[in-house]
Amino acid sequence: MDMTFVLFGATGDLAKRKIFPALYNLFLDQKMPEKFSIIGLGRREIAHEDFQKQVEQSIHTFSRRAVTDQKSFKDFLGAFRYSALDVGRPEDYVKLLELVKQREQELNLPENRMFYLSVGPEFFEVIAANIQASGLGATKGWKRLIIEKPFGRDLQSARDLNEKLTKSFTEEEIYRIDHYLGKPMVQNLEVLENSNPVLHALWTNRYIANVQITASETVGVEERAGYYDHSGALRDMFQNHMLQLMMMIAMQLPKESSPEDVRNKKRMVMESLRPLQEDQISSQIVLGQYVAGEMNGQPVVGYKDEPGVAVDSQNNTFIAAKLWIDNYFWEGVPFYIRTGKRMKEKSTRIVIEFKEPLKSAKVDDSYVPNLLVIEIGPKEGITLQLNSKDRVSDGQFEPVYVNCYSSLTEQPEAYENLIYDASRGDATFFAHWNEVELSWMWVEPILKAVEQGKLPLQPYAAGSYGPQAAFDLLGDDQWWLDEGTIRKEKKGEAYAETRA
Amino acid sequence: MDMTFVLFGATGDLAKRKIFPALYNLFLDQKMPEKFSIIGLGRREIAHEDFQKQVEQSIHTFSRRAVTDQKSFKDFLGAFRYSALDVGRPEDYVKLLELVKQREQELNLPENRMFYLSVGPEFFEVIAANIQASGLGATKGWKRLIIEKPFGRDLQSARDLNEKLTKSFTEEEIYRIDHYLGKPMVQNLEVLENSNPVLHALWTNRYIANVQITASETVGVEERAGYYDHSGALRDMFQNHMLQLMMMIAMQLPKESSPEDVRNKKRMVMESLRPLQEDQISSQIVLGQYVAGEMNGQPVVGYKDEPGVAVDSQNNTFIAAKLWIDNYFWEGVPFYIRTGKRMKEKSTRIVIEFKEPLKSAKVDDSYVPNLLVIEIGPKEGITLQLNSKDRVSDGQFEPVYVNCYSSLTEQPEAYENLIYDASRGDATFFAHWNEVELSWMWVEPILKAVEQGKLPLQPYAAGSYGPQAAFDLLGDDQWWLDEGTIRKEKKGEAYAETRA
Repeated sequence: MDMTFVLFGATGDLAKRKIFPALYNLFLDQKMPEKFSIIGLGRREIAHEDFQKQVEQSIHTFSRRAVTDQKSFKDFLGAFRYSALDVGRPEDYVKLLELVKQREQELNLPENRMFYLSVGPEFFEVIAANIQASGLGATKGWKRLIIEKPFGRDLQSARDLNEKLTKSFTEEEIYRIDHYLGKPMVQNLEVLENSNPVLHALWTNRYIANVQITASETVGVEERAGYYDHSGALRDMFQNHMLQLMMMIAMQLPKESSPEDVRNKKRMVMESLRPLQEDQISSQIVLGQYVAGEMNGQPVVGYKDEPGVAVDSQNNTFIAAKLWIDNYFWEGVPFYIRTGKRMKEKSTRIVIEFKEPLKSAKVDDSYVPNLLVIEIGPKEGITLQLNSKDRVSDGQFEPVYVNCYSSLTEQPEAYENLIYDASRGDATFFAHWNEVELSWMWVEPILKAVEQGKLPLQPYAAGSYGPQAAFDLLGDDQWWLDEGTIRKEKKGEAYAETRA
Repeated sequence: MDMTFVLFGATGDLAKRKIFPALYNLFLDQKMPEKFSIIGLGRREIAHEDFQKQVEQSIHTFSRRAVTDQKSFKDFLGAFRYSALDVGRPEDYVKLLELVKQREQELNLPENRMFYLSVGPEFFEVIAANIQASGLGATKGWKRLIIEKPFGRDLQSARDLNEKLTKSFTEEEIYRIDHYLGKPMVQNLEVLENSNPVLHALWTNRYIANVQITASETVGVEERAGYYDHSGALRDMFQNHMLQLMMMIAMQLPKESSPEDVRNKKRMVMESLRPLQEDQISSQIVLGQYVAGEMNGQPVVGYKDEPGVAVDSQNNTFIAAKLWIDNYFWEGVPFYIRTGKRMKEKSTRIVIEFKEPLKSAKVDDSYVPNLLVIEIGPKEGITLQLNSKDRVSDGQFEPVYVNCYSSLTEQPEAYENLIYDASRGDATFFAHWNEVELSWMWVEPILKAVEQGKLPLQPYAAGSYGPQAAFDLLGDDQWWLDEGTIRKEKKGEAYAETRA
């Protein structure tokens, strides 16, 4: 649908790296509306032509597909305008409204206006209020607001923020980006389960032993120390991305589902999530902080020695959690979640471990249960681990790996999917306020325990798979890992098996 | 167990290509007994040393592993002796017995004697009788008889042959080689199902739509025309190999099974196989004969123009069959079997097609159901076909192929597995008389219909996937094929989909 795309923070890093390239790739795929106007906003004064040059440069640098058709590229760039804006100055919004309207007239566009806030959360409120006050939000078409994390830093601040935003935008108009929900493999989860009778048949607590969700990063805090040291893995990753992945894999959708179905089912998952009891937090949650270690044979410093981090920082850079969903479907199936920085491998994946009803199959230590591994990033793929007999070593079990990696070299990036969905008004892969609120509610007892010093930080070496306590957390179960190899990682002692 | 291996037909092609290399590879894998004597028999007089040179040559030419340790190779060759034998001359067996005994004494071997008949079936009877008459069979240890196909050419001749053999050897002493049962992936079928809870859970007529077994060859009759023109696909492939594969995939084994369990379960499958009714044969069986066509862009002649084939031959070179197993487990699940010569690709495979309970998933023609493809040869592997959503083409279904191909470059050949099993007295992967008899019984109505001209031969072009009637046979179902691509083959009109 023809529209105006208003981008706050248009000279920022995210705009250059992700948003402009996403818009261009949507344009190439003919997923942009037939007619559209894009208006970039920033503090500095920049001429339209200079802004277009910046966009051009960002696409040449960051687009997943190269520019081949110069003429259409020129048309695309021609849709961009720029307006200087100080988020706190009402008159700048009036000037913006004039530009928006002028372009709407020039292009004969309906008053459909998308406001993308690629700015710090501290500006959300004032921008939303000014959009409303200036008349920008009084459209004859639709208006939508796209915002990014973080959405609050605890339950109360999230509620405050939401209350303020909803003065200018209804919940249906707010699109909260959780870019993990934009990843193609995450968007594929529903289809994978619902379009494959064989997976559907296995999708029950009769067969599933546990579900493991891992998002491990190899990087440290890099230039984000200032933000990260006040946020940590718990707020930066767990409350949003990890719990969203958990909802996506745990929800039970009907064959044909609407965005409302998805939101309802996700909410139901969060409502069924067993709340943390104060006296059990330490048996369900492990927080960690990396100390000096080694990555790829190179020594790396510990978190406290990172530039920008307080030398006595008590911030968590790792969290592992054991969760229970108290509904009929997931009864008795633990969910294990972990995420951390400076870990051995960069990987986001979901592992479904299947039960072995006949324990006799565990003939030796090499036995690996059936696993369905859904690789979300950096590579995408589905792996099914099956057992086979190795005739050479005369009947020993040998795991075989049934792999699939995406053929789509042309796989769209998360931001393409999300911007496209928002432009169509499809909120399926955005975080609803209910989910955000329920996630913060679930996390509250952890924040409180941290404050009260009841969750001591577990040190782990940079370049490891996290602290020992995260392995102990699983009891008789174990984390299954994948880095070119499915590896048996028992109580921290890793050993590799060659991939078949 | 230490033994003497007596090989009839030791100067023949099978001995050179398969049996000597198999013995050597078993030796390398330390699967030959600590002490063993091997005695080759043939019509011509050959010195022991010359025979050993023949063996040496055959191993250099045909062994899957090269000779690296000359000393141990010499030891191996040193175990070979030769004796000239006319199968009809009793005195030659007496001479053989002397040699066997002499070697047993020299090597201090127990009287365990394996008789491998690598000769035409017309000699089975006379050899077995002479083994008995000469005293060769009167051992203090065990004696075993290994024979190859064909085992009869109809029910009566098979019964006659069996009656004669059992005068000299008990059923437990007879090892009928069906070399398809020696193929590693076939030997793996039981493990695959029983060691993988996810496959076990799916292994029911609730989820399985049909089972397809294909053994297609690209070759014509080659130098076997004389034999083949009196045998055809029905006798040469279907009655033995194809029905054995059907038994192997259809039998339901307990977790820990004995060779007796396997035999019992296979017999039960054959006993449950719905007998062909005279008036329905033409709706369940298709026979074909190839006519001139093209293979790899080269014209090839039709069957009747092959050297050694009668110009008016009515022999079948292709058979397709639709079978029903009337037991609780396979109720409602058709088995489709086909085998033929001069087909488009060389492949032996079993495809399990899973049901699509919600037909709505069939959104377009590109929909492919979930398939478990077990590749038996020439390459080995397991493929699971899953459906995924293609974001690029905006929600169209895109099959993804979850593949696994064997990592074992050192995979033993069928003959190694089978000789090893026979030497251990493990009859799991040999055809029991019950199975042979029941197979011939099931095939009898086809033989009769052919005789009475009630099953007209369907012509098919060399290089095709068989006659149109073989596609029509499946009704609304279709053959699923695999040649680097899983292909949708509907009513004979093939079109390819690129593998993911």
